[in-house]
Amino acid sequence: MTKLTFWFEFASTYSYLSALRIEPLAQAAGVEVVWKPFLLGPIFAAQGLTDSPFNVYPVKGAYMWRDMERECVKYGLPIAKQPNVFPGNGLLAARVATLGADQDWGMDYVRGMYLAQFVDGAELAAAQTSVGVLDGLGVDGAAIVERAMTDQAVKDALKMNTAAAQEAGIFGAPSFITLDGEVFWGNDRMEDAMAWAVR
Amino acid sequence: MTKLTFWFEFASTYSYLSALRIEPLAQAAGVEVVWKPFLLGPIFAAQGLTDSPFNVYPVKGAYMWRDMERECVKYGLPIAKQPNVFPGNGLLAARVATLGADQDWGMDYVRGMYLAQFVDGAELAAAQTSVGVLDGLGVDGAAIVERAMTDQAVKDALKMNTAAAQEAGIFGAPSFITLDGEVFWGNDRMEDAMAWAVR
Repeated sequence: MTKLTFWFEFASTYSYLSALRIEPLAQAAGVEVVWKPFLLGPIFAAQGLTDSPFNVYPVKGAYMWRDMERECVKYGLPIAKQPNVFPGNGLLAARVATLGADQDWGMDYVRGMYLAQFVDGAELAAAQTSVGVLDGLGVDGAAIVERAMTDQAVKDALKMNTAAAQEAGIFGAPSFITLDGEVFWGNDRMEDAMAWAVR
Repeated sequence: MTKLTFWFEFASTYSYLSALRIEPLAQAAGVEVVWKPFLLGPIFAAQGLTDSPFNVYPVKGAYMWRDMERECVKYGLPIAKQPNVFPGNGLLAARVATLGADQDWGMDYVRGMYLAQFVDGAELAAAQTSVGVLDGLGVDGAAIVERAMTDQAVKDALKMNTAAAQEAGIFGAPSFITLDGEVFWGNDRMEDAMAWAVR
């Protein structure tokens, strides 16, 4: 079965759409999705950006929230709203997702965190948000979050993901990369990436 | 018949895709398209941008040209290539398009200029590019370009278009606005804009 890597950043609104949509599409296409959490902050910083483009350009930001509303309706997803802190700091969540990459709860945690952040208004960076989502999946949230915060191997793996994303030419999220190295940026290109993977 | 305004900037690559695609889609949907040339330069400048984001962020620029290639294949359009000067200066072309807005040759001129610039590698800003496209449409290119360069009413109309775009919340091209004021940004949203216009 061919593979598609799905690169997501927890603070990214359009990654929410892709995280919720990707598995049914992949199953229909016969594609295995490799979920890759990474941090956009260091990549933006390398471009000289110190804040989200949606904050730097307020008109673009206002448009984005309206567009998200329409997109959520289009895809039948709960409407995403701007959380109190935006963009949130996705470091802890990305570490938990890195730890969960080969665990049964991994994908559900990612989807749960997007819903918690953009639908329920929970703070992305707060440990209690991750603990709550994990507990809701029937695993020991406090223990997993503790390990995600302290395990050097987890920290290193996430750093490697972010370096690999930058190396691959990723500059935004979500992004998708096929086995032959074709990069697709944005939720709008998910179907194209899937088609490319199986062509 | 409901209307959709189509806001385009001649230097914009994704505007090329929309300019070539919009009329068949609009006719199928029963929508009248109002073609609105405007200048992105003053709008970018108001955001503090002095160059195309595709130049400011080279990784994003390289991605964009690859994406354009795939998009052209997807839509059955001639492949767009990076011209020697990018972004080109679209002032003259936008003035000619403003002059041509109520002329039979108006839309063909716009489409012809995108093909000349991105497929044939002609320089957008060069008067001879506009003259050549117009002559090819069977009108007096030299006379039209002369008038576009000197007629104060044409200059004022284009300035008003650009001010109206900014006022409407446009920050990029192409953009589409429905009669009820809904703004859609990007060639990827053209179908959504069309559907909104007739809903």
